[in-house]
Amino acid sequence: MRFYDFHESGNGYKVRLLLSHLEVEHERIELDILKGETRSSGFLALNPNGRVPLLEFEDGRVLAESNAILYFLAQETSYWPTDPFERALVLQWMNFEQYSHEPYIAVVRFWTFAGQLDEHQAELPDRRVRGEAALDVMEAHLSGRSFFVADHYSIADIALYAYTHVAHEGGFDLSGRPHITEWLGRVAAQPGAISISDAKPGAS
Amino acid sequence: MRFYDFHESGNGYKVRLLLSHLEVEHERIELDILKGETRSSGFLALNPNGRVPLLEFEDGRVLAESNAILYFLAQETSYWPTDPFERALVLQWMNFEQYSHEPYIAVVRFWTFAGQLDEHQAELPDRRVRGEAALDVMEAHLSGRSFFVADHYSIADIALYAYTHVAHEGGFDLSGRPHITEWLGRVAAQPGAISISDAKPGAS
Repeated sequence: MRFYDFHESGNGYKVRLLLSHLEVEHERIELDILKGETRSSGFLALNPNGRVPLLEFEDGRVLAESNAILYFLAQETSYWPTDPFERALVLQWMNFEQYSHEPYIAVVRFWTFAGQLDEHQAELPDRRVRGEAALDVMEAHLSGRSFFVADHYSIADIALYAYTHVAHEGGFDLSGRPHITEWLGRVAAQPGAISISDAKPGAS
Repeated sequence: MRFYDFHESGNGYKVRLLLSHLEVEHERIELDILKGETRSSGFLALNPNGRVPLLEFEDGRVLAESNAILYFLAQETSYWPTDPFERALVLQWMNFEQYSHEPYIAVVRFWTFAGQLDEHQAELPDRRVRGEAALDVMEAHLSGRSFFVADHYSIADIALYAYTHVAHEGGFDLSGRPHITEWLGRVAAQPGAISISDAKPGAS
């Protein structure tokens, strides 16, 4: 199995983290988004939407979208619930992440490390407000809960952890959000958890 | 079962369409987004993220996010595949819809009917480019295929149909995209299919 990834990508890190929990063997291929490597004709033939993460199987099948990949890998494991309603709640939080969280928290972080904050000044205030709103929803939900769904660590936590634990890199402040902070610690303490920086080229 | 909805919402229409296919009895409650009715304290107590569609069950459980609701209703029906990889592909296309399609095609349509195009002039060109790119990905994928996954009508088609079939209301032109146009016809011809305008207040 080939796993196309970019080391700074939180969407990629979601998959990396689950692959590590599950100890799944794979070949990891680093593509540099900043150099346009996900828009090469070769990669577009694999994923016409031009994005990582992407899984390519030995029989040629490919699977895109971080949350679909998490689902595929987690089926039949403890990271995906058995109850039909709990499964739907996991997908609810994964959709919340992609629609109400990632476009604000991840995108502002991306503009920061890509040196694009200046050119996006006009959009920045709205992105910050919406990112803060997403963190408020998470903080309220985690009050009295250990994990997002059924008090059990699942791919919903993995999906939300990826960009939340580096939200400060885009200027979002978690210090007034104790429930999120405690939950981040619980995720980081899971067996097999790895750091987002472990994939940095040159990291051991 | 209570279904909170807004008649102009394509995300709501996804759920309406599947409820109609499945002939599921429910009470539909119209909330006007333009009047802030999804941000009332009463509704925020149900969905802290302040969005429709939302399902509320008789035992008090609630489920948000259109694609999670589609999944919940479609389990054990022909609208959700049985093969694990095909299931992941359905989720892949539903995530594509929420991340690479809806924020451009649905949002420009919303700005149009909400009379907010003027205040979003600066963002409009980028939204149009990204919406066209999403339609290009769909057009290429549908070449030689009847439906998005495994040539079988599924909740992936329902999710993508909702805002694609009204894309022209936001100024997106489908006339040069014959594969999308033919697929729209196939979806509209499914047993139990309803129109997005059937939910308009006053429509019979």
